[in-house]
Amino acid sequence: MASDTRNRLIRSTSRLLRTQGYAATGLNQVMAEAQAPKGSMYFHFPGGKEELAAAAVDHFAERSTASLRRFLDDNDTVADAVVAIFDSYVDHLGRTGYTEGCAVASVALDAAASHAVLAEATGRAVRTWTGTLAAALEAEGRSAEQAHALATLVIAAIEGTLVMAKAQQSTEPIATARDALRATLAPEAAAAT
Amino acid sequence: MASDTRNRLIRSTSRLLRTQGYAATGLNQVMAEAQAPKGSMYFHFPGGKEELAAAAVDHFAERSTASLRRFLDDNDTVADAVVAIFDSYVDHLGRTGYTEGCAVASVALDAAASHAVLAEATGRAVRTWTGTLAAALEAEGRSAEQAHALATLVIAAIEGTLVMAKAQQSTEPIATARDALRATLAPEAAAAT
Repeated sequence: MASDTRNRLIRSTSRLLRTQGYAATGLNQVMAEAQAPKGSMYFHFPGGKEELAAAAVDHFAERSTASLRRFLDDNDTVADAVVAIFDSYVDHLGRTGYTEGCAVASVALDAAASHAVLAEATGRAVRTWTGTLAAALEAEGRSAEQAHALATLVIAAIEGTLVMAKAQQSTEPIATARDALRATLAPEAAAAT
Repeated sequence: MASDTRNRLIRSTSRLLRTQGYAATGLNQVMAEAQAPKGSMYFHFPGGKEELAAAAVDHFAERSTASLRRFLDDNDTVADAVVAIFDSYVDHLGRTGYTEGCAVASVALDAAASHAVLAEATGRAVRTWTGTLAAALEAEGRSAEQAHALATLVIAAIEGTLVMAKAQQSTEPIATARDALRATLAPEAAAAT
């Protein structure tokens, strides 16, 4: 049961980070959303909000990396996988009224520079995403350097169009970047370089 | 003098939004940083924090758009201008210890979905950047559609690598995306499509 409470605290925090960021997320709100018994917060997270938020970023990173691997496994090419990721993300933002974003992005922008524990978690997340995608691009015959560069561009496009889509309350930038990346990632493009 | 106070309030808010986001930025902190006399806040911004933050986002957007135009004017090609923008931004993040980011990104991620006035300001900013860059790409001979797609990808790469650089406390993702975009933006690449 103790570990159930711990998981609920982490999941509630991850969701709150995605919708409102680090500063707005207070421990009372997390405890209420997680229906966590009084005292459980500091039992599970003696380091307080910072430790809880780092665990929530790790949780979000694990889930999103697993999802990235599924998209890569379920598609014949990395280009197809990336198109499917952008499509699913257009769908998700539209469905949630642009409220949900990326826990890593929110924490990175507003809190990573002032909290080393958070910077470790956000850094780990971004390196894992980039590395996972780069490995798949290398498996398609690209050099390690080219695979890393393309993987960086794709992760940047995902995070960057999230900012643009939320800024404009429109999924148009995501669909536009998806189409621009589709050509860049075509396996024929790899063969030609 | 009244308008001096107004400008100081806007500039302080813009700086605080870039470093800590919307939720963490309180009116008392803004007034202290701006050395604004008591009562001046609601005299200049009867709509309170939301109205002040929207004005700060507009201010940040005007400055960054002016900077974008200067880079485009000072370079022979859009590709060169984009490389110079990424280089200046690597320099800025390194110099400020990854503390300063983009007021539009911070507000877009955490507050635009719940404040229509802020979403209007962030949407205006992103549309202006994309449109400015697209016009320059069209002037190099690309179709309107291709220019808009490339402009979207460049703005997404800037915002996305900001997230990645702050997440990793490293400018490596910015330099990597810069090199990946340089080839994509080469005028010869336009002629070949």
